[in-house]
Amino acid sequence: MASTTLTARFNQSVTKEALRSYLAEFISTFFYVFAVVGSAMASKKLSPDAASNTSSLVVAAIANVFALSSTVYIAANISGGHVNPAVTFAKAVSGHITVPTALFYWVSQMLASVMASLLLRVTAIGQNIPAYTIAQEMTGFGASLLEGVLTFALVYTVYAAGDPRGSPLGAIGPLAIGMMAGANVLATGPFSGGSMNPACAFGSAVVAGSFKNQAVYWVGPLFGAAVAGLVYDIVVFPAQVQDSIAGVSDGIGV
Amino acid sequence: MASTTLTARFNQSVTKEALRSYLAEFISTFFYVFAVVGSAMASKKLSPDAASNTSSLVVAAIANVFALSSTVYIAANISGGHVNPAVTFAKAVSGHITVPTALFYWVSQMLASVMASLLLRVTAIGQNIPAYTIAQEMTGFGASLLEGVLTFALVYTVYAAGDPRGSPLGAIGPLAIGMMAGANVLATGPFSGGSMNPACAFGSAVVAGSFKNQAVYWVGPLFGAAVAGLVYDIVVFPAQVQDSIAGVSDGIGV
Amino acid sequence: MASTTLTARFNQSVTKEALRSYLAEFISTFFYVFAVVGSAMASKKLSPDAASNTSSLVVAAIANVFALSSTVYIAANISGGHVNPAVTFAKAVSGHITVPTALFYWVSQMLASVMASLLLRVTAIGQNIPAYTIAQEMTGFGASLLEGVLTFALVYTVYAAGDPRGSPLGAIGPLAIGMMAGANVLATGPFSGGSMNPACAFGSAVVAGSFKNQAVYWVGPLFGAAVAGLVYDIVVFPAQVQDSIAGVSDGIGV
Amino acid sequence: MASTTLTARFNQSVTKEALRSYLAEFISTFFYVFAVVGSAMASKKLSPDAASNTSSLVVAAIANVFALSSTVYIAANISGGHVNPAVTFAKAVSGHITVPTALFYWVSQMLASVMASLLLRVTAIGQNIPAYTIAQEMTGFGASLLEGVLTFALVYTVYAAGDPRGSPLGAIGPLAIGMMAGANVLATGPFSGGSMNPACAFGSAVVAGSFKNQAVYWVGPLFGAAVAGLVYDIVVFPAQVQDSIAGVSDGIGV
Repeated sequence: MASTTLTARFNQSVTKEALRSYLAEFISTFFYVFAVVGSAMASKKLSPDAASNTSSLVVAAIANVFALSSTVYIAANISGGHVNPAVTFAKAVSGHITVPTALFYWVSQMLASVMASLLLRVTAIGQNIPAYTIAQEMTGFGASLLEGVLTFALVYTVYAAGDPRGSPLGAIGPLAIGMMAGANVLATGPFSGGSMNPACAFGSAVVAGSFKNQAVYWVGPLFGAAVAGLVYDIVVFPAQVQDSIAGVSDGIGV
Repeated sequence: MASTTLTARFNQSVTKEALRSYLAEFISTFFYVFAVVGSAMASKKLSPDAASNTSSLVVAAIANVFALSSTVYIAANISGGHVNPAVTFAKAVSGHITVPTALFYWVSQMLASVMASLLLRVTAIGQNIPAYTIAQEMTGFGASLLEGVLTFALVYTVYAAGDPRGSPLGAIGPLAIGMMAGANVLATGPFSGGSMNPACAFGSAVVAGSFKNQAVYWVGPLFGAAVAGLVYDIVVFPAQVQDSIAGVSDGIGV
Repeated sequence: MASTTLTARFNQSVTKEALRSYLAEFISTFFYVFAVVGSAMASKKLSPDAASNTSSLVVAAIANVFALSSTVYIAANISGGHVNPAVTFAKAVSGHITVPTALFYWVSQMLASVMASLLLRVTAIGQNIPAYTIAQEMTGFGASLLEGVLTFALVYTVYAAGDPRGSPLGAIGPLAIGMMAGANVLATGPFSGGSMNPACAFGSAVVAGSFKNQAVYWVGPLFGAAVAGLVYDIVVFPAQVQDSIAGVSDGIGV
Repeated sequence: MASTTLTARFNQSVTKEALRSYLAEFISTFFYVFAVVGSAMASKKLSPDAASNTSSLVVAAIANVFALSSTVYIAANISGGHVNPAVTFAKAVSGHITVPTALFYWVSQMLASVMASLLLRVTAIGQNIPAYTIAQEMTGFGASLLEGVLTFALVYTVYAAGDPRGSPLGAIGPLAIGMMAGANVLATGPFSGGSMNPACAFGSAVVAGSFKNQAVYWVGPLFGAAVAGLVYDIVVFPAQVQDSIAGVSDGIGV
């Protein structure tokens, strides 16, 4: 019986509508990573000491606001606009999407991130893809804790934006999500980098060929995301069962 | 009889819904202070002379816009999205919330600010928490006056955003609040700092261990906030009795 | 009979609702001028060569976006959110408000601008108020033409934002207005200053005590504003008779 | 019969409503190009080495966000808010507008871009109009590919913003479009320039008198735009036949 349920769930994950969601996640994550990693490369090209430059921090922050707001926007009505494996993880943990669907989302997001980093490498001749790194004086644990706290804020905002009580504020949900990401980058850019997105860290690491500190951008964010989803659903809004911006959502029923 | 009323009011302040409001204020104030204080630290790490750097002013202003808009957004439907003891003070003075509720809001906000400053201190090894200070050539009275005027603008915007006549403009209320804060920071950053938020000044002062000029960030803002609330309710919109974005609001009835 | 009509119109301009509009215009123009002029002073304090500094251009542009969006927002439902004598002039020329009302709006806006400049002068000890000036290589005519074209864009946006066909886009009207102002400042900051607002130029000139090139900031903007209003009402949307964001509007009837 | 249909279609393109659309496209494209090209000139005037300056990248990106959001906004309800020949091309290819209408849109957009560049040249005495160029190390093919990918993102966002399922997110459509453009500029500014708009590249090239690499800003963008429109209509939202923000739209019927 269990395997029948599993097959049924898997089938739910390959419907026409579901495939469209994966495409939407691919497109949105591609352009999010393209803007975030590309803007870091552009800063570096313009001033080689970009890493110690206040203007570069502005570039990184507004790249997050502009790119995340617009990519969440274009995917919101199709896939729910996750654009981030941590968001997908939280939605799976709190039962908004099934595990097979979550896995397909992850594959789309990872693939998109690698492809975006590759395009940047191919077109920006002579520039290296910058992998996320942590400040010298930070420990891996400290950085992961920081990234986890930041991702908590981001995922909490995603849940608030999808909250059916939110009207008429629902209209600016994608903006609130992008702005939270930008605020976090401003606070932590020179410390842990302010990734909050395992796909982004993964894609740039694959193309840069450096997985140093990669765990920092996975452990903290996934943990923070799951906690945010559970806090929102259990404490802040116990009765919530549907998303107002939700794509493939099929509950937790067996 | 008076004590009965007091107890009744207190009981209203510890319902499940009220506790949720305090949690929402805690989370929002935590991330607001985290972004505002953290971005000042990030600026300083990138260029040690950040205090005399135009890019750092941009960082401070957009940190306020991004962080305040998004944190007001995520708390708007739960606690009313104060994220600032001065806003809570105004709401209490103009009778939108009871005094016990206001006190619980204050405790949440102060605690959140201290915790956010602590997290920044722990993760950003070797960096000091910057407490708000006023420009050398300013008097404490001048700075407090300036902060009071700025807080008037901010709280006035909060009231306008909660104005039930505001639809469909209600949708961008949190953005208008954040942008007003950002505009004020651009105008006064190098003079009084542009705090407009006693919690933010308090938390960073506690962790920095320096309460110099702290009164500047309390006297002016609380006074300006109360005046803004009263002007809005009495002159601009006399008939207003309910907030469209209100959490715990139980009138001024005995 | 004519004088009776005049008296009647004047009486319409001193109702309780009308007085509230003047107060709203005062408050909004005060904080708009405070942010725009204050941010120029802040830039100058941070780097004395601010006039030849790219970051200062960013500061000027975002000060316009943040301050104009938020001040239009808080006045939109009370006075129509002009915050600019050029907008008031266009509304009077195209018959949306009567001439006496327009005059009261102008007085409020001018007074607010002078007061804001005074507050800046008093609190920012040792700093001069910067009056708007044009680039050395520009002629007064060229600068006035430029300011006129910019103000056309701004007032056209104000009309589009008040267009009843605009829903649901009406919700972000104040943002569109602020962003148009910011875009114009980015394009013309180092040439004509990008004022687009006679009140702003007037207030800073009064406190700075320098009326050099003041005509530039009046002739072009008022002309551009009137043309924008007429083009919008006659060509773009002939049937428009009411504003969706309008305060005191009493038509053109005798 | 074919010629009759052609005449009928042509007549549809010169109605009063259609002429109004061309005017709206002219006005919006004029101010978009004015802000984008003007801000590049302003950056150059402030610091001659602007091309290798991180603040100039911020200026270019926010000029796109502010100018594109506001100009799309003011034309949205009249012409559909294309402001870009690539968007018009996609709408014609996917059958939202007829070919004659598209040609009139193109003429308006090109004319507006040339006029805006001329105004900048006339008023900014002694400054050259900067034509778009590609980084030295890039090939024309690489740059065109990059511009094509960027334009795909922009046009895809335009389609998502016009998607009738989008409410209440429809309210922030112009903002999402502007932010996508800004994110793309941040990622590619120092590489291909991040034009995404053949009219903008054309107008500045005409006035600068340099058509070097002009093909880069036409081939890629038109191709990317057409693909984006087809992907959206066929894969993402097959049933879509009407735009929610559409001006002159007369289907694909013979």
